[in-house]
Amino acid sequence: MRKLDIQAIEDIALGATVLGTGGGGDPYIGKLMTIQAVEKHGPITLIDASDVPDDALVVPSAMMGAPTVMVEKIPSGYEAIEAFNALKNYLGKEVFATIPIEAGGLNSMTPLALAAQLGLPVVDSDGMGRAFPELQMVTFHLHGVSATPMVLCDEKGNSVLLETINNHWTESIARSVTMVMGGVAMIALYPMSGKQVKESGIHGIVTFSEKLGKTIRESKYSGKNPIENVLELVKGFKLFLGKVIDVSRRTEGGFARGIARIEGLDTYKGKPMTLEFQNEHLIAKCGEEVFASVPDLITVLDTETARPITTEGLKYGNRVTVIGIPCHEKWRTPKGLETVGPRYFGYDIDYVPVEELAITNSN
Amino acid sequence: MRKLDIQAIEDIALGATVLGTGGGGDPYIGKLMTIQAVEKHGPITLIDASDVPDDALVVPSAMMGAPTVMVEKIPSGYEAIEAFNALKNYLGKEVFATIPIEAGGLNSMTPLALAAQLGLPVVDSDGMGRAFPELQMVTFHLHGVSATPMVLCDEKGNSVLLETINNHWTESIARSVTMVMGGVAMIALYPMSGKQVKESGIHGIVTFSEKLGKTIRESKYSGKNPIENVLELVKGFKLFLGKVIDVSRRTEGGFARGIARIEGLDTYKGKPMTLEFQNEHLIAKCGEEVFASVPDLITVLDTETARPITTEGLKYGNRVTVIGIPCHEKWRTPKGLETVGPRYFGYDIDYVPVEELAITNSN
Repeated sequence: MRKLDIQAIEDIALGATVLGTGGGGDPYIGKLMTIQAVEKHGPITLIDASDVPDDALVVPSAMMGAPTVMVEKIPSGYEAIEAFNALKNYLGKEVFATIPIEAGGLNSMTPLALAAQLGLPVVDSDGMGRAFPELQMVTFHLHGVSATPMVLCDEKGNSVLLETINNHWTESIARSVTMVMGGVAMIALYPMSGKQVKESGIHGIVTFSEKLGKTIRESKYSGKNPIENVLELVKGFKLFLGKVIDVSRRTEGGFARGIARIEGLDTYKGKPMTLEFQNEHLIAKCGEEVFASVPDLITVLDTETARPITTEGLKYGNRVTVIGIPCHEKWRTPKGLETVGPRYFGYDIDYVPVEELAITNSN
Repeated sequence: MRKLDIQAIEDIALGATVLGTGGGGDPYIGKLMTIQAVEKHGPITLIDASDVPDDALVVPSAMMGAPTVMVEKIPSGYEAIEAFNALKNYLGKEVFATIPIEAGGLNSMTPLALAAQLGLPVVDSDGMGRAFPELQMVTFHLHGVSATPMVLCDEKGNSVLLETINNHWTESIARSVTMVMGGVAMIALYPMSGKQVKESGIHGIVTFSEKLGKTIRESKYSGKNPIENVLELVKGFKLFLGKVIDVSRRTEGGFARGIARIEGLDTYKGKPMTLEFQNEHLIAKCGEEVFASVPDLITVLDTETARPITTEGLKYGNRVTVIGIPCHEKWRTPKGLETVGPRYFGYDIDYVPVEELAITNSN
């Protein structure tokens, strides 16, 4: 158990954006919301999953929608509390702690801001160890936890409570509600026992995000290449170095979808790298050659500073380094790959771990 | 207070389909559902609005969606009870009675089937005196009753509870949820006190539907023209006599929308009549000349039997008589016309009551 100060919040937001793999929202808004909440209500307590009693209730808080919309339609700050309290009242039980659902600039911050406002601790775990675009794409789901009861609230005061037969229906219905609400909603979902958190969560992720953010922040003084510092910490691989030459982006079906093309500076066989994304990067290819795919993490870093660039922030002329990071082992199981492997996203390829592809591609 | 037997149910379904003005669902399915429920659970009790204590809770039950989908995707029978009970539990109060929200082949039957299954009485009132396509288009809305808390349930077991800031948001969110659920959902909404029912309902509508259905059923023995019998009872006007020559129909945005063209048999200035509909008929025109528009009722009857034909049942070759029926006076108030007048549906015309148009058009 420890307290998170303003510097910690800044570092967590930055580090989580690397793990957000292009999605999970912009760190700037999330950071401001959280710092404001801490300045008003005092510091946030971070606890380990092992500190949560087995029968205590833990409720994740997150923002749902297209990151392209999130940067323009900023939450009022009350709707996260509305969603959380509506779910608490529906369950008729006290909530022991909140927890992030994913790593990402915004969704690492959402539960922190809520925790400050409600005086609740935050569990140092999440349900992805990265960001993914759909609600059922969490390790909680792999362990059989139901996403419902779930509540969505918008900034206008509308509230929707779902009880579904499975987590895919939750995703479909909630996505459609989010679109009607204007493209973004604050959500409370996957209410869990402490026992379920321990079994199904990805642990230490907030602390790891903080360490990663701190590494980037301090890189300019480290004397080492900032990208190398990041790769060392995340055990990642440099996939491509280049300049963004084209971004085709559309907000469709409640997601930010698109393709970014990056022209090589140390050109790889002359072909540009293409990144295809649905909120998060799904696949990195040069021509037909795959360099990384879901569920491994594909992140675009500013080549000079190693600061992550989200998909909605990508633009022509960015000098970037694309890195690949091995995903958590829970995603490499058959159920994990069925849920978030390349075939789920419509790619007719088998998943090959990024570390194996790195060996193949370097030969 | 009286009991409804099988014959009464058949007559109500038939008469309500006339008032359904093309929408409100097909009477066949609704009738079968209700008769089955009565055969299993015993007869239904119909009560007057004046029999409901002022502080008693009344909850309407209905089916929401496109009638084109309703005829193919038949409810399992449990989802109406699920929706009703979920709302009851949320309100934490016993329900005194149910009530129809609209007249229509299906939605006159939905609360009857539910009442039989739950042993509840049905109030002899509704919120339209006809059918309309959207949730806020009820006299309850005109009197300031909130559509939420509202519950939607599908036949798979998914359930959604809404709390919105106004009835237009309820319509938008519920429509989108209905579409994801497959185009149809069973709903419980507009929970009301007995006092609100008395103030805001359209009273005697079930009894009137029954009388209308009985009139059509007995017409073949009456020696009089069946159409004339109907017109006399509803104080309606014959707008057009002809043959359906074209129906353009699409299920779009959760509604059955389209245009039907009817060629005159006793040709009116040689121009066919066009009927435009969004679940229900919105406007009847010959060329630019308007014969009737919302909120007045436009109904297509089989010329020989006077049996109503719903928009999804309209097809080439039907020999039909189009009739216009003056709507309830609540719809002719400024708030009524703002809610369901021709301009709300995108027509750039002022509303003229069908009885005035009948005089103009006959000159």
